[in-house]
Amino acid sequence: MTTMKNTRGFASDNNAGVHPDILKAIESVNSGHVTGYGDDVYTDRAISTIKGIFGDGVDVYFVFIGTAANVLGLTAATRSYNSVICAECSHIHQDECGAPENYCGCKLLSVPTPDGKLTLEGINYHMHGFGFEHHSQPKVVSITQATEMGTVYTAEEISEIADFTHKHQMILHMDGARIANAAVTLGLGFREMTADVGVDVLSFGGTKNGMMYGEAVIFFDQALSEDFKYIRKQGMQLASKMRFIAAQFEAYLTNDLWKKNAEHANKMARILADEVAKFPEITVTQKVQANGVFATIPKEVIPILQKEFFFYVWDETTSEVRWMTSFDTAEVDIKGFVDVLKRVLKFVI
Amino acid sequence: MTTMKNTRGFASDNNAGVHPDILKAIESVNSGHVTGYGDDVYTDRAISTIKGIFGDGVDVYFVFIGTAANVLGLTAATRSYNSVICAECSHIHQDECGAPENYCGCKLLSVPTPDGKLTLEGINYHMHGFGFEHHSQPKVVSITQATEMGTVYTAEEISEIADFTHKHQMILHMDGARIANAAVTLGLGFREMTADVGVDVLSFGGTKNGMMYGEAVIFFDQALSEDFKYIRKQGMQLASKMRFIAAQFEAYLTNDLWKKNAEHANKMARILADEVAKFPEITVTQKVQANGVFATIPKEVIPILQKEFFFYVWDETTSEVRWMTSFDTAEVDIKGFVDVLKRVLKFVI
Amino acid sequence: MTTMKNTRGFASDNNAGVHPDILKAIESVNSGHVTGYGDDVYTDRAISTIKGIFGDGVDVYFVFIGTAANVLGLTAATRSYNSVICAECSHIHQDECGAPENYCGCKLLSVPTPDGKLTLEGINYHMHGFGFEHHSQPKVVSITQATEMGTVYTAEEISEIADFTHKHQMILHMDGARIANAAVTLGLGFREMTADVGVDVLSFGGTKNGMMYGEAVIFFDQALSEDFKYIRKQGMQLASKMRFIAAQFEAYLTNDLWKKNAEHANKMARILADEVAKFPEITVTQKVQANGVFATIPKEVIPILQKEFFFYVWDETTSEVRWMTSFDTAEVDIKGFVDVLKRVLKFVI
Amino acid sequence: MTTMKNTRGFASDNNAGVHPDILKAIESVNSGHVTGYGDDVYTDRAISTIKGIFGDGVDVYFVFIGTAANVLGLTAATRSYNSVICAECSHIHQDECGAPENYCGCKLLSVPTPDGKLTLEGINYHMHGFGFEHHSQPKVVSITQATEMGTVYTAEEISEIADFTHKHQMILHMDGARIANAAVTLGLGFREMTADVGVDVLSFGGTKNGMMYGEAVIFFDQALSEDFKYIRKQGMQLASKMRFIAAQFEAYLTNDLWKKNAEHANKMARILADEVAKFPEITVTQKVQANGVFATIPKEVIPILQKEFFFYVWDETTSEVRWMTSFDTAEVDIKGFVDVLKRVLKFVI
Repeated sequence: MTTMKNTRGFASDNNAGVHPDILKAIESVNSGHVTGYGDDVYTDRAISTIKGIFGDGVDVYFVFIGTAANVLGLTAATRSYNSVICAECSHIHQDECGAPENYCGCKLLSVPTPDGKLTLEGINYHMHGFGFEHHSQPKVVSITQATEMGTVYTAEEISEIADFTHKHQMILHMDGARIANAAVTLGLGFREMTADVGVDVLSFGGTKNGMMYGEAVIFFDQALSEDFKYIRKQGMQLASKMRFIAAQFEAYLTNDLWKKNAEHANKMARILADEVAKFPEITVTQKVQANGVFATIPKEVIPILQKEFFFYVWDETTSEVRWMTSFDTAEVDIKGFVDVLKRVLKFVI
Repeated sequence: MTTMKNTRGFASDNNAGVHPDILKAIESVNSGHVTGYGDDVYTDRAISTIKGIFGDGVDVYFVFIGTAANVLGLTAATRSYNSVICAECSHIHQDECGAPENYCGCKLLSVPTPDGKLTLEGINYHMHGFGFEHHSQPKVVSITQATEMGTVYTAEEISEIADFTHKHQMILHMDGARIANAAVTLGLGFREMTADVGVDVLSFGGTKNGMMYGEAVIFFDQALSEDFKYIRKQGMQLASKMRFIAAQFEAYLTNDLWKKNAEHANKMARILADEVAKFPEITVTQKVQANGVFATIPKEVIPILQKEFFFYVWDETTSEVRWMTSFDTAEVDIKGFVDVLKRVLKFVI
Repeated sequence: MTTMKNTRGFASDNNAGVHPDILKAIESVNSGHVTGYGDDVYTDRAISTIKGIFGDGVDVYFVFIGTAANVLGLTAATRSYNSVICAECSHIHQDECGAPENYCGCKLLSVPTPDGKLTLEGINYHMHGFGFEHHSQPKVVSITQATEMGTVYTAEEISEIADFTHKHQMILHMDGARIANAAVTLGLGFREMTADVGVDVLSFGGTKNGMMYGEAVIFFDQALSEDFKYIRKQGMQLASKMRFIAAQFEAYLTNDLWKKNAEHANKMARILADEVAKFPEITVTQKVQANGVFATIPKEVIPILQKEFFFYVWDETTSEVRWMTSFDTAEVDIKGFVDVLKRVLKFVI
Repeated sequence: MTTMKNTRGFASDNNAGVHPDILKAIESVNSGHVTGYGDDVYTDRAISTIKGIFGDGVDVYFVFIGTAANVLGLTAATRSYNSVICAECSHIHQDECGAPENYCGCKLLSVPTPDGKLTLEGINYHMHGFGFEHHSQPKVVSITQATEMGTVYTAEEISEIADFTHKHQMILHMDGARIANAAVTLGLGFREMTADVGVDVLSFGGTKNGMMYGEAVIFFDQALSEDFKYIRKQGMQLASKMRFIAAQFEAYLTNDLWKKNAEHANKMARILADEVAKFPEITVTQKVQANGVFATIPKEVIPILQKEFFFYVWDETTSEVRWMTSFDTAEVDIKGFVDVLKRVLKFVI
């Protein structure tokens, strides 16, 4: 059962709480009345801040969560007879309980990937049936940055996918739930890895990196967002007290908070990976380019380990597990985890 | 344009900020890691608190907003060939951009009402076509408590509607976005005005009464909630950092915070109504039973008044406007508003 | 129970069978192979015939039934956050089991009418909330010609509604399930009462006037039909052996078959109305402008009468019934019906 | 362009016309009036005939086409948070323009197959995430009989899949668009290969085997069909003049018409396969167990051949094509086709 100890672990970056600066920002806007649903100065300011990053020609809409950002962004980009090409391990395909199909009506065409990254060859497998009314019409390619496997697309890779996508009059969507972690790895600004390399719609997340709730749907292709205010409202994602989402984004994007948090989480992941790699029984299976560590460990160790540090098994057949670090992971947490690992592995082997 | 002044006004109860106790509660749970998506002690505790109010036999699910609580509650209660009977002025019919139809697939059958309250006669108008496959099958009656017109159903009225609804094997849904305001008016506990009088599904709101975000869908008929965890997730309403919604509800329902806030808002509404009723040019059009005041005022006054205190025109044809009070409305705000009214009315007449 | 007698009655024009010329046309195209799904000479020819009537600038798609023609035509004209204004008695609102809401996602806004005909005043009641994201955005006005009450819009009335609709950047949809009956009443060609007076999308029906199955969705505004081939296929309305629908339309529109059938049915309705009006106990309640007769009759007569001639009660509260004539109604059928009426009324009174 | 010649070819079994006995049956019910929408003696009789085959405990509903039978059958078996496991080449996944996702809301989980047949191993790949709300809940396994690759499941194979499916509290759906072709291959009655081996819902098709239009959804698990009359109506698949679908089924299932047609088509496929296999440049790629022949042929031959006999390329990358035979294929057609093949292959090589 759950306990009040709230030990920091490696189950997910969303098991962490909220960064103190975010909380402070929330408090700081809590005075008096402002118009609801986003027609307020705090929302104006947060949108300006985001436009300062991505350029004036973007449209920005806040929603509550990443699943909604993805689904409503896709809704804006599609009609129900379209299909969306994505990695088999992508959040939209595996972890949204079929919300994209249900809400957009679209078919998701998945591509198995060894590392979570779509390739041109993988995308191309589904690039057929254009103009043939019996076939769902491919309309969107969706990539995740950083990927669900803790890897990161380079700007060049994104650009190449964008060109391929646009050549087919299609739209490039990016699920950026962990875009900050990717940005610090690439050493690029958000714009350089999205708008500048051909992304058309972005789910811009912060909750996994220290925010409480709230995600931004950012349209680089403004033709797509023309009616998005209705899509958001009908999609049950229009917050009445919007200022509290706006304040979080404002704080998140100010004083490099996003960057410090992501750099820290990534660094912790690298340390964790280095430490666990020292165990001969453990094999790190993916490049550690963001804040996730994937590894195969002896099957019988898993339930014992989970009792002290809960985490998810990624692939039962291969005994592959996932460990995530977050903005508040401390080196002592890693040390504690490694100590338990040591004890448990000795015990089992 | 929006200003930084944030003057308290009467546009909507959701223009207010967050009660300090709610903010404190949010901060108090922000330490360490807990499992995401509601599998944590804070969520357990908040659900226990709610069960303490409504009885153990209820199912409780947190979502982000009232629109979602309504739509997903209705989704659980219907299939797409069903219809939902509601007041013409109801939030689900007027203010959710068609989300119920789009998400549930159902038809909404609206009933004009003078005061926002459904009557048996009004409901009965749509009670036909049962078993006839050409006709959407009536399945839900949805009432709002307090209503969108600031009026309140008595427990007897709800009970009568529930009996009529159940007699037809239908389900009674209550949109309780302002249930606290109704409860203090009735002098009843939440249970006495819902579960005990036949409500089957409740959207239990707090955001309009001092919370930041978060609403609870409460099922008194547990047969309806069997699969609700999937409905919530697919409906894009499962919060990852659920503890921050849970903490709000915990604080809201502790030390009678909900009650104090609602009593205050209602009192302010009565004072406001009394004050504006003194102007011969103004007619209060609805009973003031919650925190809303409806009144007809001279048409030409509206835009002038709105410049200083923004509010919504309810009915352009009759020049009827709506003024809402909130937990943080001060008597001085009413005085300020009345002063402006005086000045403006003199100027115009 | 149903019997093999198959006596012609007045329950519905779709209780009739198929005109012999239509059957012959079906047989005549039944030789050899042609490409499926409409890419065949018969379909080409039928579409040409229809373009010959409505003008070359139209797009024509065959579907199976009227409900589908309505729903898919509306799908092409809307996105889910739109609303559709229609008469309360309209087929899309009363008789399609909520298919428009479920499939388009749109809200239907109904207007009570005494005679089935929308008026500008009735439409205008719902003309608000434009640009307001909380409100379903009005996008389509849908009229039925002839109406469900057996009345007919004049070309001037349609033109006036079209102007009003277009002034609001909205689209005029016509449910023409009984358009032939209206055309002969007006003495106009199909084009003069649709394209020429501002209709944008038409459900063009023939099944109620002697065809077996098949309806055409005709777009006068081709911008609406750009993707309709996908909408039709995904909407489960693309016939594989399309030639058999095409052949029916070809025959229906050749040698004035549609006209003769409709003229006959309308004439029979007038005779029937004249005959029943002779009974002092019966009041014809609607103008008989097409092939339907509405009348109030003594309540206790209804079940007795229905045993010999089944028909539908239109309004239980007023004891109003509906009698429909069809292309194959014979004067002897009317005589037989009147004889029964005589006997039954005498018996009861 | 299309021509009036209507030469019989091998593009699809739905390029054929209608068997004369079916046409005769249609004519034979075309007298007098019967109640619409299926409440007539012809529909009663056809349903009785089908129950005579499958057993009294089944529910039978007629719809217009196979896509609708599949989609509405799946709608009855699922809620939107479910997933459907199917072969990658299945009609529901490849050829319905995403109708299942759009209409049911469900996710389709596809399995690549060499021969169109699902195996336990293939199904098992998607059998995870039960009870985990982030994941679409597997609910249906859908198989096609005969498959899209012209192969046939044995009764044992179906039984094995059914057991596996039921063990997981899931439902087995069969797309029987070509069930007659499979039945004659297996030498089994319809019941022995469906109800008796665990199929829960069947799309029972006849259009590809000599009917004009109309398909039956047959529920062996009556719990699934409780509300199907509403699902069919709202799904735009309720025919008003139902007797003409019923009459077709009656004729189809009388005097072994279905059997003779299917036996003939299958026999023609075997002859065609034998003939084309004689060309060293052609490799038949699938077992010929129904009425389809799959083969790889030299790429450059395809467009030349298609000019005289249109057919579909199944896989551009491997130059695999599909040839279908039908109830009206004559040996002379095969001879003609082979002659052209001879000429064209000589010319090209």
